[in-house]
Amino acid sequence: MTYAKQMLEAHPRGAAVQTGPLIECIEACLDCAQSCTACADACLGEADVHSLVHCIRTCLDCADICATTERVLSRQTEFEADVARGVLQACAQACRTCGAECERHAAHHQHCRVCAEACLRCEGACTSALSALAA
Amino acid sequence: MTYAKQMLEAHPRGAAVQTGPLIECIEACLDCAQSCTACADACLGEADVHSLVHCIRTCLDCADICATTERVLSRQTEFEADVARGVLQACAQACRTCGAECERHAAHHQHCRVCAEACLRCEGACTSALSALAA
Amino acid sequence: MTYAKQMLEAHPRGAAVQTGPLIECIEACLDCAQSCTACADACLGEADVHSLVHCIRTCLDCADICATTERVLSRQTEFEADVARGVLQACAQACRTCGAECERHAAHHQHCRVCAEACLRCEGACTSALSALAA
Amino acid sequence: MTYAKQMLEAHPRGAAVQTGPLIECIEACLDCAQSCTACADACLGEADVHSLVHCIRTCLDCADICATTERVLSRQTEFEADVARGVLQACAQACRTCGAECERHAAHHQHCRVCAEACLRCEGACTSALSALAA
Repeated sequence: MTYAKQMLEAHPRGAAVQTGPLIECIEACLDCAQSCTACADACLGEADVHSLVHCIRTCLDCADICATTERVLSRQTEFEADVARGVLQACAQACRTCGAECERHAAHHQHCRVCAEACLRCEGACTSALSALAA
Repeated sequence: MTYAKQMLEAHPRGAAVQTGPLIECIEACLDCAQSCTACADACLGEADVHSLVHCIRTCLDCADICATTERVLSRQTEFEADVARGVLQACAQACRTCGAECERHAAHHQHCRVCAEACLRCEGACTSALSALAA
Repeated sequence: MTYAKQMLEAHPRGAAVQTGPLIECIEACLDCAQSCTACADACLGEADVHSLVHCIRTCLDCADICATTERVLSRQTEFEADVARGVLQACAQACRTCGAECERHAAHHQHCRVCAEACLRCEGACTSALSALAA
Repeated sequence: MTYAKQMLEAHPRGAAVQTGPLIECIEACLDCAQSCTACADACLGEADVHSLVHCIRTCLDCADICATTERVLSRQTEFEADVARGVLQACAQACRTCGAECERHAAHHQHCRVCAEACLRCEGACTSALSALAA
């Protein structure tokens, strides 16, 4: 059992949103934030860094937004649905933009391929969490 | 001249958005993030911490969201309007929610009063930056 | 295979430090940062929040420091051993302090028990990464 | 009066460390974090990005470390001197490394010149805060 799941189950007030999509989204954000930080760095280390400038920039944004979304969703006390909705929408957008850019380089760079996959999964997890919020 | 302004003027590609609202928003996010971190901590140090639980939680969220918004807006290279719009909307919402909660405690706690002011200013700066983005 | 491991193996310049301790430390930091964010929030939601003020504060610090350490270690391009050493030492200290405080509440709060475990593991992973850096 | 100063003066328990060096350090960290984020981005937008790879990397690390140091120092409740000392030492090191690298490009890039100055000021502020902690 992951730490995220253990921590959520130990919360004194219970989860503010349906547990399944919430944990999935927290973990997808953690993975995507780390992948984007690592992909920006790997792109920076490539010989053709000049052709990866756009990719580095979207990865830096996506890493920051996923990290913040993970934190907001990890908090259940006095949960504010409007705030959660805002960051989830921003996160889904950042993952969509970053995933599309990474995908363009996936054939040449393995780190972009893996990062595109992390972005796609995180975008989907944000969308599911938004549905759970609306329920 | 602030560092944010100096850095923006030194950018090789120029600003992606109208300079005035952009700098104002970056600086409002820096101040609001710091105020929210400090207000959550000051609330935690109050004798009536149990009545400030909601305020602490919204301040923690708002600090994270403002910090991320500041970073996204500080980047001009390969600027993505959709990503910027998403975080600005999330930030305006977080500031609105947090500012309203801090305002409720403003009469009793000076730190909540100052933080409410920082939130209000940041919400306005995000709204102006959104207008500049749409222009 | 975790994303962190996949991303490290895809880096064009290879890992700057021995791969095993590096991946272990990145993943321990991710888990500990998330656990600390969630533990601060769970403590905030407890009826006896006034007795958990110290725990909330150390968890907030530890979450921030672990998140930053994870990012610094996730970057392999132009790796600076002195900078990595500084954050690893700060992270080990934060985990030691936070783990000890969480441990004091472990018998009464399951979230503190899980978080103490995440801190202990992360402190150990930072110590191992420091040894790998010195090698 | 800055928000950081207003918030510190409104804290119910007072400042844990001598006020002057503390505020100076919080504000230097805010400025340096923002400058480093902006300098990494400006370097990324330069035609000779391949010669600025090292600068981008140290700026990304320095931005993260300064942001975390600012947060730890902004919290006065249940202040832990050992944790503060750890992040301040890490921050001084990151500023020294990043400042030296930015300085190498200061003659060609104005953003590197401004960022080197922010790093130098922040390194000094961290050193002063460490002295205040020891007092």
